[in-house]
Amino acid sequence: MTHQLKVIERKQLQEKPDPATLGFGTLFTDYMFSMDYDPELGWHDAVILPYQNIELSPAAQVLHYGQAVFEGMKAYRTGDNVRLFRPDENFKRMNKSNARLNMPEVDVDFMVDALTQLVKLEKEWIPTGEGQSLYIRPFIIATEAYLGVRAATHYKLMIILSPVGAYYGSDHLAATKIYVEDEYVRAVRGGVGFAKAAGNYAASLMAQTRATELGYDQVLWLDGVEQRYVEEVGSMNIFFVIDGTVVTPELNGSILPGITRKSIIELAQHLGYTVEERRISIDDVFEASASGTLQEIFGSGTAAVIAPVGSIKYRDQEIEVNDSKVGPITLDLYNHFTAIQNGTEEDPFDWCVKL
Amino acid sequence: MTHQLKVIERKQLQEKPDPATLGFGTLFTDYMFSMDYDPELGWHDAVILPYQNIELSPAAQVLHYGQAVFEGMKAYRTGDNVRLFRPDENFKRMNKSNARLNMPEVDVDFMVDALTQLVKLEKEWIPTGEGQSLYIRPFIIATEAYLGVRAATHYKLMIILSPVGAYYGSDHLAATKIYVEDEYVRAVRGGVGFAKAAGNYAASLMAQTRATELGYDQVLWLDGVEQRYVEEVGSMNIFFVIDGTVVTPELNGSILPGITRKSIIELAQHLGYTVEERRISIDDVFEASASGTLQEIFGSGTAAVIAPVGSIKYRDQEIEVNDSKVGPITLDLYNHFTAIQNGTEEDPFDWCVKL
Repeated sequence: MTHQLKVIERKQLQEKPDPATLGFGTLFTDYMFSMDYDPELGWHDAVILPYQNIELSPAAQVLHYGQAVFEGMKAYRTGDNVRLFRPDENFKRMNKSNARLNMPEVDVDFMVDALTQLVKLEKEWIPTGEGQSLYIRPFIIATEAYLGVRAATHYKLMIILSPVGAYYGSDHLAATKIYVEDEYVRAVRGGVGFAKAAGNYAASLMAQTRATELGYDQVLWLDGVEQRYVEEVGSMNIFFVIDGTVVTPELNGSILPGITRKSIIELAQHLGYTVEERRISIDDVFEASASGTLQEIFGSGTAAVIAPVGSIKYRDQEIEVNDSKVGPITLDLYNHFTAIQNGTEEDPFDWCVKL
Repeated sequence: MTHQLKVIERKQLQEKPDPATLGFGTLFTDYMFSMDYDPELGWHDAVILPYQNIELSPAAQVLHYGQAVFEGMKAYRTGDNVRLFRPDENFKRMNKSNARLNMPEVDVDFMVDALTQLVKLEKEWIPTGEGQSLYIRPFIIATEAYLGVRAATHYKLMIILSPVGAYYGSDHLAATKIYVEDEYVRAVRGGVGFAKAAGNYAASLMAQTRATELGYDQVLWLDGVEQRYVEEVGSMNIFFVIDGTVVTPELNGSILPGITRKSIIELAQHLGYTVEERRISIDDVFEASASGTLQEIFGSGTAAVIAPVGSIKYRDQEIEVNDSKVGPITLDLYNHFTAIQNGTEEDPFDWCVKL
């Protein structure tokens, strides 16, 4: 592991986008980070360089066998103050994904340092509007040119940056409509559901497409064995407020261990809410709705932060939650959470890294 | 869909490898096929061009969300006679993979034509030794530069060619040792197990690594729900000869529908064997061994063709099959199958396409 970080300057910088028009993940900043791995040198040639296309062998294993993991996090800016939200957690989780996919471990401290340097260099790219941020995408791909099925020997780690608006459009607290998928399965215990493995997302597209066609925003996945227990939403973990208690599915190997999920649990407890991590079936959710104890539902994730859920469709039943409006506990958590991320409220957990 | 196929000539051809040293999937021929997809033009710019690296955006969706499928097939040569084995079946299966991963359909006839032209051009690269062939790898990757999770709008289809020896080394009928995986899961019904989706292979590496470390050649996967029923081996489907009957797990959505598998079923029936496609548990296999009715086991796949299985380890039990030697039915099927592929025996099924 080398800790030298070279910077190659870009001759001409791009024009920054109009903050009013920001979408998600289509624009990229002037610079990116890149680092290579081989068995002799380990991770080496760490460099910050102009954002540009990469060259791969058509036999590169990532293109055939999906040996790729990624992370997602955000940088927030208020004036000159830039904050990263728990970046060490992302690189720790990346190492868990790496381990599951037989990929080489990264040095968490070095990665946080490298990311810090990159974000500092690109500070002017961080938009400052409500719900806006710089989305950070670290990823590792297998680059070895070999068609046998085995773990690759050569990898590339990159970080690219994209200035983004709110994930679900401008009204970031509008309630989303959720479709419970009872045919397709995202992940099963013993599989790679807990890892941010590239293939998990390709496997989810068909259900998402169907949900979109039927007029829903996101898919709610059930467990792979019994197709009965709630796991997660397309790009978020999920929380229910039932009879005053905040309930979220317990981590079981097929659910992604979201860093926003974990942080919300800590924040909710800090604010005095009772939080339960437990198995919850889709029938439990519908029964709570029928009995009037289902008060709120929301999703959590880096891209969406906190997204209220307004309705859930499962087979031939559909329930509405809190009149399709953001509920008081969801709003309370959202307000504190985003204030901590933006630095407008004290950070009692020391989550934010100030650059 | 354009049916024009441009050829860009290579100025300097590579030296052909020594056939005695051929491995699997490390050397590539002088030319490759490439074709692009976008929503306006559909598949377009079909071209045979010099084998070379490709350029991708670091935000290309294949690198993040694993939207990629592939196929594998072989060309065989005897003197001047070149044969492809059921290439239409591969492109039909590719379309099934495409559908599951929300990727655009390809025109099977056009793809067989394009492949035929490519292989004709590279005829001299096809090795003619025992167990040798030209391995053909068509694949499609999502190339759109976008970090949102949805089906991509832009794709690239390529075909690369690699002269290969026998998959398991020089002694291609040596019995393999199989490790039954009872912790990790490859696929589950409702998932993408039946598709040749890139992510399936990344998910399988951990178990394969463990099996290799323990001294086994391949992993035998059990079903994802009950972890009890036999599904497939790492890179092969699996067949058992029990009490004179050829038994193979029935297709259930999580097993890859192998073209070699399907062909072996047809060949075995043609040769007068009884074939059963049915659910078979790992306990059934061990009970058949205990009662003396388990006569042979073999795997089938494009890379390995037919590979005898000499032993199976499951938890704390290990059984040997036919004294770790290739059995008479396995050998009979192997001899007829490879003779049909090589053209040394009549092809009653019209499987081979002569170039």
